Amino acid sequence: MLKIDHLGIAVKDLNNSSKLFEQLLGKPSYKTETVESERVTTEFFEIGESKVELLVADNDDSPIAKFIDKKGEGIHHIAFEVESIEKEIERLKSEGFQFINEQPKRGADNKMICFLHPKSSNGVLIELCQSIIK
Amino acid sequence: MLKIDHLGIAVKDLNNSSKLFEQLLGKPSYKTETVESERVTTEFFEIGESKVELLVADNDDSPIAKFIDKKGEGIHHIAFEVESIEKEIERLKSEGFQFINEQPKRGADNKMICFLHPKSSNGVLIELCQSIIK
Repeated sequence: MLKIDHLGIAVKDLNNSSKLFEQLLGKPSYKTETVESERVTTEFFEIGESKVELLVADNDDSPIAKFIDKKGEGIHHIAFEVESIEKEIERLKSEGFQFINEQPKRGADNKMICFLHPKSSNGVLIELCQSIIK
Repeated sequence: MLKIDHLGIAVKDLNNSSKLFEQLLGKPSYKTETVESERVTTEFFEIGESKVELLVADNDDSPIAKFIDKKGEGIHHIAFEVESIEKEIERLKSEGFQFINEQPKRGADNKMICFLHPKSSNGVLIELCQSIIK
């Protein structure tokens, strides 16, 4: 595990929340990106070596729509950057952690990602991500 | 805002969760500390320039006990390190943000801290913290 890559925050209205986080962090977002596989649109803010990722559902089937229905707006996940996502999956499986997807998939921000099941990590949804070398 | 100082995670059993996060992050915690004013015991793990702070309630009146009763274990707050907590409070108040405590108080890890009200920040409990110069 190298660092906190980003914190994902589930929001209802990307325009309003983008303005709010711009005021909070004192600088504008640096990009917005749609991740079709997750049915979300994201907006990223830099903060030190990490990022804040706002997440809005693109339709009612999106995991973000379901999260907001259940828990309301708020912190959705923590993402840790790893050197090798394949090796970390193997290491964590051997420690007994459960995964939502064991096969890394393409995420936002040019990364391969996977999610651990929050049941095996104290109710915290944890993402592992590895940058795709261009 | 300089960086994500730490992520606070509310847990029920510090021993169990400490082992879990040691396995997850691949290294042991570097300290444990009781914050009497908040009625919590904390345990810290380094990850890049940030930290993960596990929080366990010391009694039923602790904000952490109330959080777990309502929402279960999980991410409790994000803390951003700031250069001057007084100046950031003034700046954010002028932007319309609401605070739980406007007067910085002593927190864990040798810091002055204050909390924004989650109602004014998309359901996210945000802590500002400034290191106390020794």
